[in-house]
Amino acid sequence: MKIFRFGPKGQEKSGVIINDKKYDVSASGIVYDEFFFGDDEKQKTLENYIQTNLDQLQEVADEVRIGPPLVRPGKIVCVGLNFDDHVKETGLQQQAEPIMFIKANQSFNGPQDGIMQPNGSTKMDWETELCIVIGKKANNVTEEEAMNHVYGYALINDISERAFQTERGGTWDKGKGCDTFAPIGPFIATQDEIEDVNNLRVWLKLNGELMQDGNTSDFIYRIPKLISYLSQFMSFLPGDIISTGSPAGSGMGKTPQRWLQPGDVIEYGIDGLGSTTQEILPFSKD
Amino acid sequence: MKIFRFGPKGQEKSGVIINDKKYDVSASGIVYDEFFFGDDEKQKTLENYIQTNLDQLQEVADEVRIGPPLVRPGKIVCVGLNFDDHVKETGLQQQAEPIMFIKANQSFNGPQDGIMQPNGSTKMDWETELCIVIGKKANNVTEEEAMNHVYGYALINDISERAFQTERGGTWDKGKGCDTFAPIGPFIATQDEIEDVNNLRVWLKLNGELMQDGNTSDFIYRIPKLISYLSQFMSFLPGDIISTGSPAGSGMGKTPQRWLQPGDVIEYGIDGLGSTTQEILPFSKD
Repeated sequence: MKIFRFGPKGQEKSGVIINDKKYDVSASGIVYDEFFFGDDEKQKTLENYIQTNLDQLQEVADEVRIGPPLVRPGKIVCVGLNFDDHVKETGLQQQAEPIMFIKANQSFNGPQDGIMQPNGSTKMDWETELCIVIGKKANNVTEEEAMNHVYGYALINDISERAFQTERGGTWDKGKGCDTFAPIGPFIATQDEIEDVNNLRVWLKLNGELMQDGNTSDFIYRIPKLISYLSQFMSFLPGDIISTGSPAGSGMGKTPQRWLQPGDVIEYGIDGLGSTTQEILPFSKD
Repeated sequence: MKIFRFGPKGQEKSGVIINDKKYDVSASGIVYDEFFFGDDEKQKTLENYIQTNLDQLQEVADEVRIGPPLVRPGKIVCVGLNFDDHVKETGLQQQAEPIMFIKANQSFNGPQDGIMQPNGSTKMDWETELCIVIGKKANNVTEEEAMNHVYGYALINDISERAFQTERGGTWDKGKGCDTFAPIGPFIATQDEIEDVNNLRVWLKLNGELMQDGNTSDFIYRIPKLISYLSQFMSFLPGDIISTGSPAGSGMGKTPQRWLQPGDVIEYGIDGLGSTTQEILPFSKD
């Protein structure tokens, strides 16, 4: 199953993608919120609705806005430095354990809505990543159990403001949770849609020029390990997001370093999880 | 106005405290969620309901569970090292700017529900703090504007697992967002209920022994500065929480260091924001 949401901001409806075509399934009553991702009954209801109504489903037109594919994540937890080539370009030391940080919730954003430069930003950077959407609650799960707690995967961009992140004292959080800094989507693919999650190309173009071109085969820590490890520190609930880290090619790793500016356009994607195009927008207070 | 919530977990009802008595106002239809804190109309509806029904309000019995005073915070952002005496006891350097970090959402907890020791915890610590409940959205606000964005204040305990926080690589977030690590309440007091927010005693007893005894007069950064500063990095939305830092007397600052164990009881409070008693509970997966 590939699920997505469409329509005006704050009024998104539920959709599914079948054979690359987008369909409206909002009449099923199913909403992709925290009550959906862990609930087998609701997921079954959606499947039954699709099977029963397959011939009558309305297609969603290409010009309709695609929103984020879930209503709201409970939390967005990210893993840092999970690709060797990215560790090298940051100049940081590989840690003995996965690094984690949290993106504050209002960073959550749609895949077509643009990414806003924060006020005073000088070092805005991109990182294309695969994120996990949690299905069932995960608390101290083993690696063997971990995949039972996954609903699916999506495309995310872990946007950073590197000066806020590393030059303003304290933790990374100042530069990771700025408004619009966590666009998710275009869709969420359930586990069964992805043949080998450890062999997916991850790429990003800036104004048409290829900047990131990695593959999840280079994960330092694979998904079961990440879920098991992180679930030692906190429970993960249905609809929570875990982002798995980015390959090399971020702006901070370029020589000279390259930062995003209003008007820049990034296009990025991951095999099986779609792609999207985002414009960098100037700061606005509203 | 002092607002609180009562009843079984997940089914809490809305209440208000008038002259130290707790009353049920759930029949008003008002729910203390993210739509309430920024909405003058809803707040006015609640006030009118109370005035109209003052003689008929039902008292809430003392044995009824007090839940967290809001449905769910959008985010819990904390300021670290905001009292000189606490900076000294941590052995850390005072930074040129306020330090911030995020407590993951499932740390949100009620004031009487107990605090769970995480699996593998060895250094669990307390920090009594005053937290701000955001009213209207705050994005890049000035210090002069900041207080217009505050709904009120509440008591919080910024529980930490110090080994997870500082000995496991990366940011502080591993040791700050464990389940139950952010109990809020017993109630939220609107700004007008607190005569001088910069002169409130902040205290904590562990098994009856006084451990923290500070005063908000010793804030390094006062509330308008904190809101203005933090709102440079991300917007704050109605019902978001900003915790303002703790005075000296945490377990890491004691000689020898003192860590919480299952069975320990902490009692803590702040002038005007009430007090509460919490038991430390053993780890449980559910």
